[in-house]
Amino acid sequence: MPRPLQFSAFVMNTTSHITHGAWRLPEARQTEFNSLEHWVSLARELERGRFDFIFFADVVGLYADHRSSWEKFVESGLQIPSNDPSVLASAIAHATSELGIAITSSILQEHPFNFARKISTLDHASRGRIAWNIVTSLSPNAWRNFGYDDITPHEDRYAWADEYVDVVYKLWEGSWDDGALLQDKERAVHGDFTKIHKIHHAGERYRVEGPHLVAPSPQRTPLLFQAGSSPTGRRFAARNAEAQFIQSPSPKDAKALIDDTRRLVVEAGRKAEDLNFFQGLSFVIGSTEAEARRRADEVDEYIDDDAIIAHAAGGIGVDLGHYDLDTPIGDIESEGSRSHLLWLREAVPDREPTVRDLARLRTRNGRVVGTPEQIADRLAEWRDAGVDGINVTNYTIPGSYLEFIEHVTPVLQERGLAQREYRPGTTRRKLTGADLLDDHHPAAAYRGAFS
Amino acid sequence: MPRPLQFSAFVMNTTSHITHGAWRLPEARQTEFNSLEHWVSLARELERGRFDFIFFADVVGLYADHRSSWEKFVESGLQIPSNDPSVLASAIAHATSELGIAITSSILQEHPFNFARKISTLDHASRGRIAWNIVTSLSPNAWRNFGYDDITPHEDRYAWADEYVDVVYKLWEGSWDDGALLQDKERAVHGDFTKIHKIHHAGERYRVEGPHLVAPSPQRTPLLFQAGSSPTGRRFAARNAEAQFIQSPSPKDAKALIDDTRRLVVEAGRKAEDLNFFQGLSFVIGSTEAEARRRADEVDEYIDDDAIIAHAAGGIGVDLGHYDLDTPIGDIESEGSRSHLLWLREAVPDREPTVRDLARLRTRNGRVVGTPEQIADRLAEWRDAGVDGINVTNYTIPGSYLEFIEHVTPVLQERGLAQREYRPGTTRRKLTGADLLDDHHPAAAYRGAFS
Repeated sequence: MPRPLQFSAFVMNTTSHITHGAWRLPEARQTEFNSLEHWVSLARELERGRFDFIFFADVVGLYADHRSSWEKFVESGLQIPSNDPSVLASAIAHATSELGIAITSSILQEHPFNFARKISTLDHASRGRIAWNIVTSLSPNAWRNFGYDDITPHEDRYAWADEYVDVVYKLWEGSWDDGALLQDKERAVHGDFTKIHKIHHAGERYRVEGPHLVAPSPQRTPLLFQAGSSPTGRRFAARNAEAQFIQSPSPKDAKALIDDTRRLVVEAGRKAEDLNFFQGLSFVIGSTEAEARRRADEVDEYIDDDAIIAHAAGGIGVDLGHYDLDTPIGDIESEGSRSHLLWLREAVPDREPTVRDLARLRTRNGRVVGTPEQIADRLAEWRDAGVDGINVTNYTIPGSYLEFIEHVTPVLQERGLAQREYRPGTTRRKLTGADLLDDHHPAAAYRGAFS
Repeated sequence: MPRPLQFSAFVMNTTSHITHGAWRLPEARQTEFNSLEHWVSLARELERGRFDFIFFADVVGLYADHRSSWEKFVESGLQIPSNDPSVLASAIAHATSELGIAITSSILQEHPFNFARKISTLDHASRGRIAWNIVTSLSPNAWRNFGYDDITPHEDRYAWADEYVDVVYKLWEGSWDDGALLQDKERAVHGDFTKIHKIHHAGERYRVEGPHLVAPSPQRTPLLFQAGSSPTGRRFAARNAEAQFIQSPSPKDAKALIDDTRRLVVEAGRKAEDLNFFQGLSFVIGSTEAEARRRADEVDEYIDDDAIIAHAAGGIGVDLGHYDLDTPIGDIESEGSRSHLLWLREAVPDREPTVRDLARLRTRNGRVVGTPEQIADRLAEWRDAGVDGINVTNYTIPGSYLEFIEHVTPVLQERGLAQREYRPGTTRRKLTGADLLDDHHPAAAYRGAFS
């Protein structure tokens, strides 16, 4: 029997993450993001439902202006407020024992020395359940919050990301040898000086002496997620990531993308199976198909098309608020935005899509509507296409996850599509079978490199 | 009856914080700092004992070399490993309801935009129980971990600190007006755009556009601790801090220092009582004085004098490992280190102290040995001298705190020297009577400043 899919709950420490407007649904409680209990109880429910991850998206600034203003973002709660997700991790770690905790952090927001220390401390605290989603910030406001005039160009961002991961790999993998922490009361020796090393990193952007201040944690390097879809981003993922988010319009498209990306992984000197793929999907569940469709229609009544467009524009680099809804996408598309709109052209293959299509289809893209059995059928297709996991987006928190766990998970477990019990060990071990990064990973080159 | 003293547990996310060597005591469990349960259970015990704070010291680098090497630090576990304390906060917040959580963070280690966001998120998560101990890093290795060739000169560090707090004050106090977060499902308005403001900070070192990404938390600005003892440091504390650590050799000295510092507070345009003083003390408790003295001797057998000297040298700027123990302090003292050694000259008033005195007296300085009743007598003297709280250092974790709570706290409560129940509300309200900073505080000037 093929392996069960992994399941990740895709959330953000904010009110309106993706399905803008849905926070107004009567049962929606995502407005309670300031409450620690809100997140801890969600995490406990996810663990009860055998989810593998709670995955926090993040931004460190506003999206580009909409109708020349950031008013729309504030009014619709669109990722503002946007609270720090990383500081929720220890409370979640303490309240659960198996759930992976994935945190998004941009190379822009934290110095790699400080970031490496934070993650290692959390990996100890959680007994090896931390994952890092590596991002480079796309919002010009984010860059202006950190002292830059504007967003750094794409290629430069990835050169920066290359150095950033280089620094943290040196700290996580190279600074402390195994067996360095002795804590020997009898001999009065706490650490073995011969096994701890300064890293003396001196690069384009960073100079970091070291040593790393934290002893090796269960996973050393956290499990690495990445979501780049540009050619440079995909090469970065092929070299570094262990799991990648994809948003394919169909299992067939996913299979093509996965096959092509695995080729890049092999070109980067790794094994094809070293990269796992998580497809983003949302679910509207009914006891009959008709009920599910009716519920989807109810959700759609709350969806705020203007907010959807404001959000989408961030990836396109155009203020869509100034365009009529009937404007053909071709009129606003630029060289840099083509990859961000590919899904729309695939979703409307027979004619030129418009801004209105963008608004209407963005929430429906990756939405599965049906009975638990129908949903299981669809998930089997994704798994057969080679997808390793599902990144479950939500309409309501905690509702979308509670419903999934109550109605869909048992059917999936029955069919071997979802695990009944967790595999033992760290988050990396649950996904890949090993606590530490594979020897083919570039970070592994730093093991023993500073002895 | 005068107000009870506040009590703070002075800890660090490491094995050997201050009383180096004591980790080898049979009952010492501070070696378990990697464990989240270790900290959560300590926090629960502190709350049971009505402590006001768990206070985390921190460093982001090694102390200056000892005998031209950092070997001593590793072998004695002297603040290496040194884990990130801030990531423990949410687990502690979730497991407690009244305990204040004080985190040390250096201006060196985190960009103020990111730091402000982290603290605001934690202040929400803890319902207003976060305090920040503002420091400028003293270790040259810390500066080299963050890209500098060496430590920034003292005056420049405080100019940097001035701008750093300026940025975070703008974000915490000025970016969001009261009532900006509406979350009105009916009217479909999540936030009031007219009440949220970019801060457009442009200074010597930082440019930060804003807005702050987190809505106002219960305290907005966290309770502010500072421990500077130099003239510049004391002026910074007088202007900014709400609580200051002192390490006076006697209640009489404390009174003089407090009176003098309150004068600086008033000069800075604040009220004298706006700054609270926490004296650092450790306790060795016995059911008789003789038993307490015997236990103190037992502890001293484990104290590692060479580690004590290695640590002390950090503040002096001299590698004391190269000096004979009989070297007079005058031979190694420099202009910059004079204030760091004042306590030693006060402790050995009748002759020139030596390096050996430094080693022996550093752990005994601020140590109270006796029965619970004798300790209560001493604490009454400190309170009568004007001290507002006691920063309780430890020999063992959790032992030193459990013993204090079991044996001393009841006697203190009996005498009105310790609270029996918490005052309600946020950590600032418990200390000062108000949730928010006083109008005289420089941060208050930013309220409404960006409207």
